[in-house]
Parts: sequence; C-alpha cells; structure tokens
Amino acid sequence: MAQKPSIPKGTRDFNAEEVAKRSYIMETIKAQFQIFGFQPIETPSFENSETLMGKYGDEGDRLIFKILNSGNFFYDKKNKIEIPTSIENLQSLSAEDVTTEQRIELNQFTSQISEKALRYDLTVPFARYVVQHQNDIEFPFKRYQMQPVWRADRPQKGRFREFYQCDADVVGSKSLFQEVEFVQLYDAVFSALKLEGVTIKINNRKILSGIAEVIGAQDKLIDFTVALDKLDKIGEEKVKEEMRGKGISEDGITKLQPLFTLKGDFGDQIESLKSILSTSEIGLKGIEELEFINTAISNLKLKTATLQLDVTLARGLNYYTGAIFEVSAPEGVKMGSIGGGGRYDDLTSIFGKPDTSGVGISFGLDRIYLVLEELNLFPSTIAESTKVLFINFGDKEALFSLGAVTKLRQANVKAELFPDAAVSGKQMKKQMNYANRRNIPFVVIMGEEELKSEVFTLKNMVSGEQQKLEFNALLNVLK
Amino acid sequence: MAQKPSIPKGTRDFNAEEVAKRSYIMETIKAQFQIFGFQPIETPSFENSETLMGKYGDEGDRLIFKILNSGNFFYDKKNKIEIPTSIENLQSLSAEDVTTEQRIELNQFTSQISEKALRYDLTVPFARYVVQHQNDIEFPFKRYQMQPVWRADRPQKGRFREFYQCDADVVGSKSLFQEVEFVQLYDAVFSALKLEGVTIKINNRKILSGIAEVIGAQDKLIDFTVALDKLDKIGEEKVKEEMRGKGISEDGITKLQPLFTLKGDFGDQIESLKSILSTSEIGLKGIEELEFINTAISNLKLKTATLQLDVTLARGLNYYTGAIFEVSAPEGVKMGSIGGGGRYDDLTSIFGKPDTSGVGISFGLDRIYLVLEELNLFPSTIAESTKVLFINFGDKEALFSLGAVTKLRQANVKAELFPDAAVSGKQMKKQMNYANRRNIPFVVIMGEEELKSEVFTLKNMVSGEQQKLEFNALLNVLK
Repeated sequence: MAQKPSIPKGTRDFNAEEVAKRSYIMETIKAQFQIFGFQPIETPSFENSETLMGKYGDEGDRLIFKILNSGNFFYDKKNKIEIPTSIENLQSLSAEDVTTEQRIELNQFTSQISEKALRYDLTVPFARYVVQHQNDIEFPFKRYQMQPVWRADRPQKGRFREFYQCDADVVGSKSLFQEVEFVQLYDAVFSALKLEGVTIKINNRKILSGIAEVIGAQDKLIDFTVALDKLDKIGEEKVKEEMRGKGISEDGITKLQPLFTLKGDFGDQIESLKSILSTSEIGLKGIEELEFINTAISNLKLKTATLQLDVTLARGLNYYTGAIFEVSAPEGVKMGSIGGGGRYDDLTSIFGKPDTSGVGISFGLDRIYLVLEELNLFPSTIAESTKVLFINFGDKEALFSLGAVTKLRQANVKAELFPDAAVSGKQMKKQMNYANRRNIPFVVIMGEEELKSEVFTLKNMVSGEQQKLEFNALLNVLK
Repeated sequence: MAQKPSIPKGTRDFNAEEVAKRSYIMETIKAQFQIFGFQPIETPSFENSETLMGKYGDEGDRLIFKILNSGNFFYDKKNKIEIPTSIENLQSLSAEDVTTEQRIELNQFTSQISEKALRYDLTVPFARYVVQHQNDIEFPFKRYQMQPVWRADRPQKGRFREFYQCDADVVGSKSLFQEVEFVQLYDAVFSALKLEGVTIKINNRKILSGIAEVIGAQDKLIDFTVALDKLDKIGEEKVKEEMRGKGISEDGITKLQPLFTLKGDFGDQIESLKSILSTSEIGLKGIEELEFINTAISNLKLKTATLQLDVTLARGLNYYTGAIFEVSAPEGVKMGSIGGGGRYDDLTSIFGKPDTSGVGISFGLDRIYLVLEELNLFPSTIAESTKVLFINFGDKEALFSLGAVTKLRQANVKAELFPDAAVSGKQMKKQMNYANRRNIPFVVIMGEEELKSEVFTLKNMVSGEQQKLEFNALLNVLK
C-alpha cells in the first residue's frame, strides 16, 4: 500500500517562490556581511554530543536532536557474541528473545547509542571552530555563517524545528567600535531590504548589574532582570509585584522608581541613569560604553533605522557581558524581535581558549520574511522565473525551436521548450495554460508555417499581443 | 576541564576560501538550472523514517542516520508511571534500578525511539514532495534542489558523511527532448565552469535488457550488467570469467563478443548494436531512443563537452528505466564520475502516484571542486574578500576613519576598520600584518596629521606604493 506522504511536524517544504524570497533575504544579508568585511565559514550539521551538551542549560539540552549511532555493535557478554545494534535489529528482538543479561546490557547500551547531535545554534559550533582552528585564524576574526539549526521545540505558529540562523560575530577584540559597526550593519541590511524604520534597541549587561548593585539585589540579578524585561508586557505595578515576590526589598524597589519613568532621547536617558547609578562602578562603566556607541552613531548617522536605549532589555542575560541588542520591526507590524545579539566575553573558554571576547548579531530570517510579506516589500520580479516558453508542435518544429532556445539560453535568457508535442488544439491550449500558471510572460509559437519561413510568432501572455519576429529581433525583445 | 574540540568523522568545517569556492560552483550550476527553466524547491533535513526506509535497498537503509525522539515518554506498566525517555534519563538508569518489566518495556521501547531520519539523497524527498503537493504543481515539473545529504558510510578520501547534492529533474513527461536538454545542461554548466573537455557518457537500460535477452540471460540482468560495468577496470577476459561464474552460458558469451569490440563514433556503435540486437524489441527501442538524442545533439552542437555511447554504463540499474548518464572529467584528470543521472519511470508510485515518468541529473560538488582545484580553474579573484583596511590610531582617528569606511561601504566597497588602536609601532605593524595575511590589497593610514588635512594615505600592499588622496579620489581607486 502506498504511504500517504507527509513531513515531520515543525519542518517545512519550500516551493519555488518561497525559496526565491528566502534567497533574496539571505543574499541581501550576505552582501552586507561581506561589505562589512565578514568572512563566511560553514560547520557540520551535526557535532559530537559533548560539544553541544551543557552549553544551553537544561532546557536547551532537552531540545537538542540526538542522532543514533550506526554501524556499532552490542556485545553480549553471556554468549560472547556481537549483535549488530542498528535500530532494525533492536526492533526485531522481542522480549522473550533476550536474556536478562542482554536486557541489562541493552539498558546500559542505551547510554552509548548516541554520540552525535544536530546543531542547536551557530554560536557554540563557531566557538568550537575558533578554538579548533585558532592557529589558522587571523584575529580579530570576523565571520558570518548562514546555516540551518534544529530544535526539538514544541512547534507553533512561527516556531519551527528546522530554521536558518544568519549570524555575524567578531572574536578577539574588546573594541567598542565593533558594537558601533554592528548597529551600522543592522541599519545597512534593513535599509537594503527596504524595511525602513526598524528600531535597534540597545542595553548593557553592566547597567543591569549596576542597578542590581544599587538596590542591593546583586544575588537576585536574574530574577530582577526577568521581571524588568516584562515591563512592556505587564506594566509597572505587576513588575514591582513580581520583584517583591522574588524578595527584592521595598527600599530597593523605591530606588528603582526613576527607571520606570525614564524619558527622552538616548542622551536624556543616559543622564538619568548616571544619577541612578552614581554609586555603582560597574553601572557607570556600562553607561560609558553606551555613550561611546551612541556618540559614534550620532556622528556617523544611520540610514533608516533608529538606535534606542532600552534598560529593560535582557535577552539571555547569562550569556552576554556587555552590549545587548534587539531589533524590532517598524511600528504597526506585530512581530517579535527580528534580530538580536550582544557581547560575550568568554565563549571559547569552554573549549580551552580563555579571554577571547566576542560580539555578534543575528538576523531572524523567518520573521523578516513575514514582515516583508506583510508590508509587500519583496521585489515584484521575485516570482518571475522562465521568460519564454516555446510551444511544441512535433519533433521537427521542436528540434528547430530547441535550436532557438539554446541560443537564447546562451544569451542568459531563461527559456523552455514544452517537452511534449501538441497534436490537437486542446493540447496546444494545455501548453498555453502551463505558461500562464507558471507566470511565464512570453510564448513562442513555432508551427509548420513559421518553420518554413524561420520566423517566430511571439505572444505576450499579459497583453495577448502577437508579433512575428526573426531570431535577432526575438532575442532583443526577450533580453 | 576544557574539551579538546573536534568534529564527527566524515564531516568537515569549511573556511572562507573553501566556502567561496564551493559557492562559486553552486552558483554557476544554479544559474544554468534557472536558465534552463528549472525551479528551486527545498525539503526538510529530516523526513519521517517510513518515507526513507526501504527505498535504497538493505545497504542504503543501514546507512541512513536516524534521529532519536525527544520529549517522548516511556510508560512503566508495573508502576503505572511515565518515565521521561530523554537519553540522559536512559543513561541514569542503572541495571539495578530497573525492574524486569521495565527492562522488557525498555527493550520494546527501542523500536519506538526513532521516527525521523536524515535525508539520504534528494530524489526520494523529491518524489515525496511531488506526491504531497501534486495539486499545486504544474506538470511537467522541472525542479532543482541543492541541499546537503547524510550517509553513515565509512569515511574515506573524498567520501563524506555530510555532502551536498545538486540535482535537476523533470517529472510528468516521457519526451526524449528532456534527455537532449540534460545533455545540453551538462555541457552548459561545465562550459560555464571553464571545465572543458568533459565526456558525457550515455547508455539506455533498454539496451542492457535487450542484450540480456539476446544472450538468454534475462533472469541474470543484474549479474550481467555488474560484470559488464567492470570492463574498463578489469578487462575483457575477467568480465567473461565473472559472467561464466554467474552462470551465463558460453553460447551467450560468444554472442556478446561484438560488444567488447564496439568501435567508432556514436553512429558506428549504434549500427553495430542494431545488428547485435536485431531480434530484441526492447533493445531496438533503446537504440531508437539513443539515436534520437544523438541526432538532436549533433544538430544542436555542444559547446565544450563530448557525448559518448557507453554500453557498459549501468549506474544503479534497478532504478533507471531509460537513459543512463555519467560524466567524466577531462582526460588526464584521475577522478571518478563528476555527474550522473537517468530516466526512472515510476518513482512516485511508492507514495501513491503511479505512471509519473521522471528524468534527472546530478552534479558531484566535491569532485568538481577537486577537479577545478587540480586544473587551477577557480577564478583568481575568489580569495579576495576585503578591499581596504583602515589602520586604527586611536578613537579620534578611528571615528573619522569609520566615517570614510561607511561611505565606501555604501558604494559597495568591502572595507574594514581595525578595531583596536595601535599605540606603538609594533601594534601598527601587527595591523599591517593582519592586512597581509587576510589578503587585503589596500591599507589606509589615517593618523593625526592626515586627520588634520582630511587626506587619506593609501598604501598598495602588493607594490608597497603609497599615495595621498582626498576621499573622492580614494573611492575611485577602490571602486
């Protein structure tokens, strides 16, 4: 019996138009990555499990797809034989077939059935790459990487089990000019995508640490920032309630009050923060970093984006040590962040290379796609594929047509010959319909008569207009 | 303790130059696919196991990477509890911890631990796609697909566990014009890659069937073709020996004799085959098909490739039903086939859509890469990335430099600012060395003096020559 075909939940097929639109976004991002001096790398889809496990927290570990070993063997101690442990063999063992020893062995064996796992993000493989190839790399190393990642997340609208990440990172320098350039890079990419009016929100982990210090909640940094991060969603009162629940003192919450009413532009907010954090060395350091970035960006000017300070921004706090970025779509578009990133000071130490500061940003391909779709910003030519279809009236005509098709192709015109001959009016109509449904704008009719005179009848499928042309004229119209 | 980082055997990291070279090949192939009217699709990296299993023979099944289920639960009948079955939990169960029931359950459970598997090739997912989306597809459907596939093969030189396939197929037409166009497509791609002089070998399954019929070995078709396929490698005598060993009669082998001495061009060989296969209807049908293709190609002419008849060509015989293609590198280059394909008449019936003829070809990315490397055919500009590096002499100079870098980037010049300030001659030398090792051809020196006069000192890193330029002149040199 034939299977009813389907794909695993959380995964997607992409048709020609979807591939074209996704490529458009990725190529635009890639072009700016290169203009900004980033170099591409690619890493394997699966890594050794120990490279990935323990890097994303317990929840992350649970979401990593593990790959079954293949070609290994299960050693049966009692009978002193090796049993192939491919999944089929395991399946074929019924409970009665296996001895107790085998069962125990099988159980122990489960700890050995998987040694590889699918990439969960591009950052950890990048850290592994940097350490493994450190002798071949010039530092600071500016790399970009655009590859799929996999997460065993519960699939839901806009969340998939396979999706692309588009990352650019620099490792090996602490210079804040890199933060400045990443703000410019976001601006350059979204401007090139004609997605104008995005907001690049920026914060600094040091400011969050400083605030925690000032309110005497250094030990509650994560609780504190998790609550603060919700300000937009649940409002001031609920945030305070949550903080109280987490044991932050009333005195501390009072000290926080100015944070809730931070107003004005970047510079104004910075001034307020300076007074709030006046007693915190680390807080003032964070302010200094933000000021440097803001001054540089004000000086250099952004094309279409806006840089905005957002002291509630946290994003995977444990990870970032300096700047934190997040990009939101233009006002009026309901969509989570379409990009994010930040500085992490010690990513590669897990692989044996300490003191290597890194900073990077990521683009959310799927969400950018949805935003461009909603705002109708994909180029109108994106669904265009083949420019001209030659109708097939039989072998003799088709062979002559293929000669013309070949010459058109050599001139880079996307051209097709319908493969089967139309021996009736109905079949010819079928070929015309094929052109229509494929969005092919021109059709060439090359029947017996046209063959004799070597003249091509070109039909514009939009206007319905027909003209008779010699080959060179045909080429000129189609080029 | 830090882990010593490594990647799973049979997988690869690609550095910037390797990514650039691979992209060059893939973009060249993709451009020709599009010019020939093929449309891109993409399918998920993993499919439901039942989509893949049983499609590639026993050996193929064994080589499919299976993915462990995640987030499932193991039901302990005795204690009536659910035990999370993530691999960590399985690991933590020691033999003493589990009851006999649990062990049996665990054993049965192994048949349920994997429901998904990594794509083994692009053809079966394509067949699944065609059936699943048949109502949204215009037939004949010309699709291309360039994505990685995974095989648990024993890694060896030039054979990897993760590699890209680049496929173009048409389904839904039996027209031989498609075979003609695929020969042209091979020619167009290899010509565009400047890899001139490849040989496109062609055969037809019907000819192989005809020969088997003529020598009375229809039931030994596979044994017979496997032996014949080795003619190049082991020579005539050994092939005959193998055939005898497989039970092909002496009389049959005598009838085969003319095959071993097939001489001349395509047309001459066709004439010989006609007399050998004069009594086989299917054999004569195969000859007719080959003649059609050869006549069309002779008429249309190839740019740089040669079409050659090779009656020993078999390639996955069970799969192909008509034309069989294989491409070999230009003479003098030691390399297996760099492409292959053929016609398969009933691929989609396994998924419930019978009578859908397909024909397609594939490009061997890794081998093409090696051939282009050996013949030095990659464009010399391929390793060029960043065009100009601005030396960093401190924040003030760097901010001014970044303004110039920004303007250069907006004019699509790949430009970088070294992120850290050089406060000593040694550090400046480090920045120059960085440019050298990164193959950056120009460096801009923008010190205190240059800042005052707003003039840029441009140094050509190859010639060593230096010139002082205003911004517009600088842009002109770098553009």
